[in-house]
Amino acid sequence: MPSYPLLQSLHGPADLKKLPLEQLEKLAEEMRQAICEQVAKSGGHLAPNLGVVELTIAIHYVFDFAEDRLLFDVGHQCYPHKLLTGRFDLLPKLRQSGGMAGFPEPRESDYDLFSVGHAGTAISTAVGIARGDQLTGQEQRKTVALVGDSSIVNGLALEGINSAGTLKRQMLIVLNDNGMSIGDPQGALANYFDKVRLNPLYQEFKDRARDLLKRLPGAATLEATVEEAYHRLGEMTKAAIAHEHLFDRFGLLCVGPIDGHDLPTLLDMFNEVKDIDHPVLLHAKTVKGKGFEFSTDDPTTFHSPKPFVVNGCKAEVQSGGRSFTSAYADSLGDLMAEDESIIATTAGMPDGTGLAKLSEKYPDRILDVGIAESHAAAMCAGMAKSGLKPFVTIYSTFMQRAFDQVFQEVALQGLPVRLCMDRAGLVGGDGAVHHGFLDIAFLRGLPGMVLTAAIDEPTLAAALKFMQSYDAGPSAVRYPRDSVPNPVQENTPPFELGKANKLADGDDLHILAYGYPVNHALEARDDLHQQGYSVSVIDGRFAKPIDIELLRELIATGKPILTVEDHSTIGGFGAAVIEAANADQLETKNIHCIGLPDRFIHQNSRGGQLAEAGIDPAGIGRTVRQILDALAAGKTPQINVTTTRPARAMR
Amino acid sequence: MPSYPLLQSLHGPADLKKLPLEQLEKLAEEMRQAICEQVAKSGGHLAPNLGVVELTIAIHYVFDFAEDRLLFDVGHQCYPHKLLTGRFDLLPKLRQSGGMAGFPEPRESDYDLFSVGHAGTAISTAVGIARGDQLTGQEQRKTVALVGDSSIVNGLALEGINSAGTLKRQMLIVLNDNGMSIGDPQGALANYFDKVRLNPLYQEFKDRARDLLKRLPGAATLEATVEEAYHRLGEMTKAAIAHEHLFDRFGLLCVGPIDGHDLPTLLDMFNEVKDIDHPVLLHAKTVKGKGFEFSTDDPTTFHSPKPFVVNGCKAEVQSGGRSFTSAYADSLGDLMAEDESIIATTAGMPDGTGLAKLSEKYPDRILDVGIAESHAAAMCAGMAKSGLKPFVTIYSTFMQRAFDQVFQEVALQGLPVRLCMDRAGLVGGDGAVHHGFLDIAFLRGLPGMVLTAAIDEPTLAAALKFMQSYDAGPSAVRYPRDSVPNPVQENTPPFELGKANKLADGDDLHILAYGYPVNHALEARDDLHQQGYSVSVIDGRFAKPIDIELLRELIATGKPILTVEDHSTIGGFGAAVIEAANADQLETKNIHCIGLPDRFIHQNSRGGQLAEAGIDPAGIGRTVRQILDALAAGKTPQINVTTTRPARAMR
Repeated sequence: MPSYPLLQSLHGPADLKKLPLEQLEKLAEEMRQAICEQVAKSGGHLAPNLGVVELTIAIHYVFDFAEDRLLFDVGHQCYPHKLLTGRFDLLPKLRQSGGMAGFPEPRESDYDLFSVGHAGTAISTAVGIARGDQLTGQEQRKTVALVGDSSIVNGLALEGINSAGTLKRQMLIVLNDNGMSIGDPQGALANYFDKVRLNPLYQEFKDRARDLLKRLPGAATLEATVEEAYHRLGEMTKAAIAHEHLFDRFGLLCVGPIDGHDLPTLLDMFNEVKDIDHPVLLHAKTVKGKGFEFSTDDPTTFHSPKPFVVNGCKAEVQSGGRSFTSAYADSLGDLMAEDESIIATTAGMPDGTGLAKLSEKYPDRILDVGIAESHAAAMCAGMAKSGLKPFVTIYSTFMQRAFDQVFQEVALQGLPVRLCMDRAGLVGGDGAVHHGFLDIAFLRGLPGMVLTAAIDEPTLAAALKFMQSYDAGPSAVRYPRDSVPNPVQENTPPFELGKANKLADGDDLHILAYGYPVNHALEARDDLHQQGYSVSVIDGRFAKPIDIELLRELIATGKPILTVEDHSTIGGFGAAVIEAANADQLETKNIHCIGLPDRFIHQNSRGGQLAEAGIDPAGIGRTVRQILDALAAGKTPQINVTTTRPARAMR
Repeated sequence: MPSYPLLQSLHGPADLKKLPLEQLEKLAEEMRQAICEQVAKSGGHLAPNLGVVELTIAIHYVFDFAEDRLLFDVGHQCYPHKLLTGRFDLLPKLRQSGGMAGFPEPRESDYDLFSVGHAGTAISTAVGIARGDQLTGQEQRKTVALVGDSSIVNGLALEGINSAGTLKRQMLIVLNDNGMSIGDPQGALANYFDKVRLNPLYQEFKDRARDLLKRLPGAATLEATVEEAYHRLGEMTKAAIAHEHLFDRFGLLCVGPIDGHDLPTLLDMFNEVKDIDHPVLLHAKTVKGKGFEFSTDDPTTFHSPKPFVVNGCKAEVQSGGRSFTSAYADSLGDLMAEDESIIATTAGMPDGTGLAKLSEKYPDRILDVGIAESHAAAMCAGMAKSGLKPFVTIYSTFMQRAFDQVFQEVALQGLPVRLCMDRAGLVGGDGAVHHGFLDIAFLRGLPGMVLTAAIDEPTLAAALKFMQSYDAGPSAVRYPRDSVPNPVQENTPPFELGKANKLADGDDLHILAYGYPVNHALEARDDLHQQGYSVSVIDGRFAKPIDIELLRELIATGKPILTVEDHSTIGGFGAAVIEAANADQLETKNIHCIGLPDRFIHQNSRGGQLAEAGIDPAGIGRTVRQILDALAAGKTPQINVTTTRPARAMR
C-alpha cells in the first residue's frame, strides 16, 4: 500500500489550513490516488469525486466548517470532503457497514449536515440554514452549497435559486460544471451551459470588467443590494462577473466560469466572495474523472464502477453478472421492436436504467429529460394522451419525486402510463437514501393503479408484456438492484391482472411472497424441507389488486400464511393482503408479515441488509420455524415484525 | 335573469369563429357578467376567470381545439373556456354534482384534456402531447399551454420550460401575468417580472424591432432553428420580441409583454405566432379580476369567494363560520407569541392556510415561498438544522408535491419539522383534484414520522401544542376544509404520543374514528342510541403510532370495532389499526373499516361527498346497524367497504 503522508497528517480542516499553498497540489494528488485505489478495490463513486478534489480543498481552506455550513447536492462527490474532515481511516471500508458511507452522513461526522443522495436539494436546505442562522443570531456562519450542473436544472434546485435570490445575507452556491454529470445533461439549459462554457475562462477576461449594475436587470430594491455587494468586491472578482449569466435573472451575483482545478484561482476567488453579504453563484468548470485517464476518457463507466483492475492501457471493471437493469432494457427493446407506440423515459439515468443501450436504435423513442422526475412523469402523461405507450423508468426511491404527477397527471386521468421502478427494495452500499421501500405504500392508494413485481428475468419480461397490453389505467412494476437469478420456472405463465402464481406445494405453511424475496422463499423452502417442515411458496405478483380468490383458499386451509416482501411492512404487500382479507371478512390471525422494518437501514452489502431485515433465506426459514414450532407447542407465534412505533433516533 | 344573447348563441368554438371581430368585446362583457352572476350565487373562482376572458376568446378564435391541444395550468381560470365550448347550460350548477366542474374535466368535454388543479404541470403535459403528436404523425395539431405567473416559477414548470426549449416544432406557452396570482408571488423571479412589467407595452415599442439573433444566446444549432423561425415572423411580431427575457435562455422565443385585454392585439399576435415551428412564450399582461371593481380592488378576497351580494358600493361575501384554517392560524399565533423559535411556511397560499393574518405581526417568521412545495419542505429542514421549529403549512393534496423532501430532507435526518395539512379529507366543490385522501398512506411508511389529526378547535390547538414540544422527529397534523364544530369536550385532554381519547361509552360496538369524522360518529351514536344500539366513540388521535394498548382492550371486549376516517381505506388509519392488531397477534375479524373508497369522488357539496363515502352520520349509523343486525342474526356482517380492485373508468 502506498503511503499518503499528507493525508495521514490531516486530522481535520484545521490541519489543512496549516499546509502551505505549495503543498496543496501534492495533497490533491494523494487524495486522487487514495480514492482511485479504494474504489478499484471496493467499487464506489469515482469520476464525480476526482472532479472536485481541488474545489473541495479550496472550500475547506477558505471556509471553516466547524462554524460554517457546507451542503452537498446528491452527495456522491463527498469523498474528498470526508478525507479532509478526519475520515481517512474509514476509507478502507468504503460503503460497508461501519465504514465510510458513500454519501454525506451526519451519523459519521458533524461536518456532514444532511444525509443526501437525491439531487437538487442542497440549495433549498442551504437557503433554510442561511435564513435560520439569520433568525437565530448566527449570521456569522457562512453557507456554501456545492451543486453539479445536472442537479441545478432540477425543478427543486431552480425553486431554491429563486428563493436564494431574495436572501439578504451571504450564501455561496458553487456550480460544479463538468458538462457531463451522470448522463449527458438534457434540456435547453444544457445548451445554454454549453454556450457559457465557450466563453473565455476567467483568466482571459480580467480586462473585461464592466459595471455590474448595467447588466443585472433586477428591480430597484434588488439593485440597491447588489450595488452594495458589488462595491465590496475586489477588482479580480469584478473582472470575473459573469456576463449575462442565466442566474443573474434570479437575483444572484454570478461569477465565472473559472477553472475548477486551478488551486490559486480557486483560493483567490473563494477569499474574495466569502464575505459578500449577498447570494453569489460561483461557476467553476471541472473535468469529471480528472487525474485518472480512464475516467476522463469514459466518465460514464467510471461514474460509479464496480471494482476494477488497471492492466497497462486498459482498466477492466468487474462484471456483476446479468442485472435486472439489463434484462429490463432487453425485454423493453423486444417490445419496442414489435410495438411502435412504446416510448421510454429516464430522468438523467440513461445508464442506470439500461435505456442507454436502446437509445441508439430508437433515438426518438428513448427520452432523457435530465434530473427532472416530475417532468418525466407529467410529460409521459401527455404522450399517453397522444396515443403512445410511455414506460417511465425511474428508480423506486426517485419515483417519490414524481408522486404528485403520478397522482394528478396519470392516475386521476386514468391514463395507461407504465412506471418501471428499478432499485426496488434494498440497494446495498448506497444505503438508506437509495432503498426503494415506499413505492407500494404511496402508489397503492391511487385509484385504478395496478402494482406488480418481477422475481426473475422471465417474470420481468412477462410483467412488461402485461403492462404493454394493459391500457385501462396506470400500472407499475418493481425490480431490484441485483443480478437476475436462475429462472424460477421453466415456462413462466403470462401475467394475468390480479392473479398470483403458485410455485411450490407444501402442507404446513404458505409463503406468499412479493418480488425478489420469492427467490429467498424458495431457497428457504428447500432448507426447511430437509428440517422436516413442508411449506408452499406463492409468487404474489400483484400488490394491487390482491388475488382475493387465492387468499380465500389459503386462509381456508387453516395453515399459517407468511407474507414476505422487500418493502416496508407499513402499507406494503403484506398490509395489502391483510386489508383485503379483512375487507372480505376473513380472519387474519394466521397471517404473519415480514419485510423491511420501520427504521432506516444503512450502508452494507445487499446480502447483509437482507439479513438485517430477516428476509434472506435464513431469516425466512427462521421465521417459518418460529411460527410452526410455536403452533406445535400450542403457543401464539411471536415473530419479529415491524411495529409502528417511532424509529430509534439516528445517532 | 339577464339574457346573454351572444353566449346563448354559441354551441362551440365554431360558432365563436363566425362572430365578427366587433362583437367579441360584447361577448367578453356577457361572459364576465354570467360568471359574476353565477359566482355571486354559488361561490367559485372569480378573479382568475375575469382576468382571462379576452385571452381565452382570442385563443379559441385563432386556434381550433377540435384538433389543437389546449392545456390549463392549475385550471381555476377555465370558466371562460367552458363557456366557449358549449357548456353555458352547465354554469347554473357550477361546482355541484352534475354541473360544471370548477376545473378542467375531461369527463365533461373533449375540449378539456386533463383534469387539473395542482399548479405548474401544464407545460410538461403540453411538451408530452407536442412530442407525442410529432411521433404519431399528428404534428399539424398545435399545442397551447396557458400558465399564470405564479405557476411558472414552480419547479415542475421550470423543468417543463427547460424541456420545451428543446422541441423542434410548434408549441405556444401563454404566460398570463397578472402579477398577483393567489397570494403575492414570492422569490427573485417575481422581482424580475416586476421589472419586465415596467417595460413599455408592445404597442409602444413597435419601432424597436431588433435582430433576434443578437439577443438569443442559444447554442449554434439552437440559433439556426430560431433564425428560421424568426424569418417567418411578421414585422409586428418582430417588434414585440422581448428584449432579454428570462426564458429566452431556456431556448424559447419570447414575445411581449402585450396587453392581455386588448382583443385586436391578441388576435394579431396569436395569428402571427401560431404557425411558428419553434416553442414560443407569449407574455400577456392581465388584470386579475378585470371588469368587476370589487375583484380588481381586492383580488385576494375575490380569488375564490363564497357567495356574495353587491350592495351599492360594497360587495358582501357570505361568512362561512369559523374555519379550521382560522383556528389553525390563531392557535399557531398563540404558540408563536410564547416561542420565538417557531416559524411557519406556506407555498403560495398565505390566505388559504390562514398564515396571512400572522404575517403582519411576524414578517420574518411567516414565509411564503410561492408555489414551491418541494422547496418549502426542504428549506424548513434547513431551518430546523439551525434550531428553529418550522411548521410547514401545505394542503394535504399539495403535500404530495413535497413527498420526496419530507422523505430525504426531513424523515431521513430525523428532523422535527412539523407538517400542518389543511384540506385533509373531502373538500367539496373543488372535487377530485383537491381531496386530501392519501397523506396517511404516503407519510406512514416514513420511519420516525408521527401522524395526528384534529377533530375540533381545542384538539387542533392541543395537537399543535404537542407538535411544538415533540422534537424527537417529524410530526404531522391533518384537519379538514370545514367550519369548526362545537367543541367535543369541555376540557380537551392534552395530546400524548400514541394515545387515543375515549369520548363516549357504549356496549355493543366501538367506533374508533380518526379526524373530523369523530364528530359524525358522535352524532350517529346519538341516533343509534334512540334506535336501541349502544356504541362507544373513541378519537384515535394518532395514525402513527397506533394506541396498541387501547386496541388490545377494545378487541378483548369481543365487540365489533368500526374504524372511520376521511382518508382512503388503503393504507389509512383503519389499515394502520389492522396492521397493528395483526402484528400484535390479535384477531382482526371483528374490525371493520370505512373511509374513502378506491375511486375518485367528484365535485359536490362536502356533505354530499361525505354521504357518498358513507362516513356522514347517516352512513356511519347505517354501517353500525348492518354489523350489529348481522351479528344478532348469527350472520357475518357484510359492509360496503373498499376493495382493492381497479377503479371504474372515468368516462
